[in-house]
Amino acid sequence: MEKKASIVFIGAGKLAHHLAPALYRQGYPVVGVWSRTLEHAQDLAQRLGKSTKATNDWSQIPTAEIYFYAVTDTVLPELGARALAPQAIHLHTAGSMGLEVLVHKPNRGVFYPFQSFSEGGETDFEKVPILLESDSESVLQTMQSLAHSLSQQVFVASQSERQRLHLAGVLANNFVNALYQMAEQECQKAGLPFEILLPLIEQTAHKLHTLTPKQAQTGPAIRHDHEVMQRHEQLLQDEPLTQQIYTLFSQYIENHET
Amino acid sequence: MEKKASIVFIGAGKLAHHLAPALYRQGYPVVGVWSRTLEHAQDLAQRLGKSTKATNDWSQIPTAEIYFYAVTDTVLPELGARALAPQAIHLHTAGSMGLEVLVHKPNRGVFYPFQSFSEGGETDFEKVPILLESDSESVLQTMQSLAHSLSQQVFVASQSERQRLHLAGVLANNFVNALYQMAEQECQKAGLPFEILLPLIEQTAHKLHTLTPKQAQTGPAIRHDHEVMQRHEQLLQDEPLTQQIYTLFSQYIENHET
Repeated sequence: MEKKASIVFIGAGKLAHHLAPALYRQGYPVVGVWSRTLEHAQDLAQRLGKSTKATNDWSQIPTAEIYFYAVTDTVLPELGARALAPQAIHLHTAGSMGLEVLVHKPNRGVFYPFQSFSEGGETDFEKVPILLESDSESVLQTMQSLAHSLSQQVFVASQSERQRLHLAGVLANNFVNALYQMAEQECQKAGLPFEILLPLIEQTAHKLHTLTPKQAQTGPAIRHDHEVMQRHEQLLQDEPLTQQIYTLFSQYIENHET
Repeated sequence: MEKKASIVFIGAGKLAHHLAPALYRQGYPVVGVWSRTLEHAQDLAQRLGKSTKATNDWSQIPTAEIYFYAVTDTVLPELGARALAPQAIHLHTAGSMGLEVLVHKPNRGVFYPFQSFSEGGETDFEKVPILLESDSESVLQTMQSLAHSLSQQVFVASQSERQRLHLAGVLANNFVNALYQMAEQECQKAGLPFEILLPLIEQTAHKLHTLTPKQAQTGPAIRHDHEVMQRHEQLLQDEPLTQQIYTLFSQYIENHET
């Protein structure tokens, strides 16, 4: 068995709390955790074996083969520009940012797990898509082997491709969630519990395993049932924003029928 | 054990193909199936025991205690007005229609399973919400016992409440599905497979079991991250309808933050 590369985590937030233990479980020695807040570094380090060093002192970061910058977009530029082991591999996890934030680090890459992580719990990375980018072929190979040890879904994607994927995620997650909120509001007006919609919501998501969204479409707009659509718009007269959204969606569905 | 009421199905479409066998499995004798197309009636009848009569002749519909009108909204008014066993119980399954379409039938009700049914397969009704309405207390009791024998989620709801629930369903199913379609389009532009979004999509639906949609919200709009929102709107410049929808959703999420 090949020796697994040693790793240091810069940052001890949500993503680091899921990613570092997952790599540790795959046999990667995580030798250090740096965080601006010592307690956060210690919290994470104690989940990674006895010899993992926790520090909030940049000069005390241990030597490693790979440095993971698992920090927010806002602090990454500052931390990525700090001097640190110039010959090591430096990877950041911020999907929307490019390689260039890792300044004066020739062996650099982006290692972007495409999932939203919440506090606590463990993540099974097996089905989490991981997107990779590097300007070095050998770094890309190291990242491929790291990523494949965690996930079955590994892709190489440029910054602009990741940004478009992020947009797709906003549509399919944040905006879907906003529709759930609008639907909840209508249930409340009807005196019915929101839970009544859960089987339909699960069915809608589940259908995507066998049908394309277009094939799965049903409802008044695809049937061009303007009587029902007008009645619904009427019902939304006290919710002008939802009403406008209703009209645009009906238009979209009618336009994209075939 | 009380004797279960005998049932006839008027209509042999998708809903009847799911509902009639489910009632039959619960011990209700389904004694007849009428359909305009004899083959459809026969197809369904053969799944309901040996003595079930299939017919396309209205005058040959067997006597029963309960008649289920499981037909589309467009033909229900015509069939509901036809003369048939005036003293029996008559129930229709069309959520958007009122009791009055069952003409000259004093013992009438609406029995509306809130789910979309596809061709083939069996439906486990246990988690399918069923909405009931009647202007007769004794019919309502009979419907309650029928509905509870199938499902754990039984509600009494008026026509206007059902119509609002239908609107909620369009938001949470058809429009969600349209967002999936827009997201698929963006994945294609990035050269990435749509499947990359499936874990996120399932997570979004799954969160509703523990969080309200508002609590579950994440993303650029809730963070008021206008830089990212503007970049996304830029990426959608070739999709004016999706771009407008993006803007309205961001507005909705920012407005409904607290």
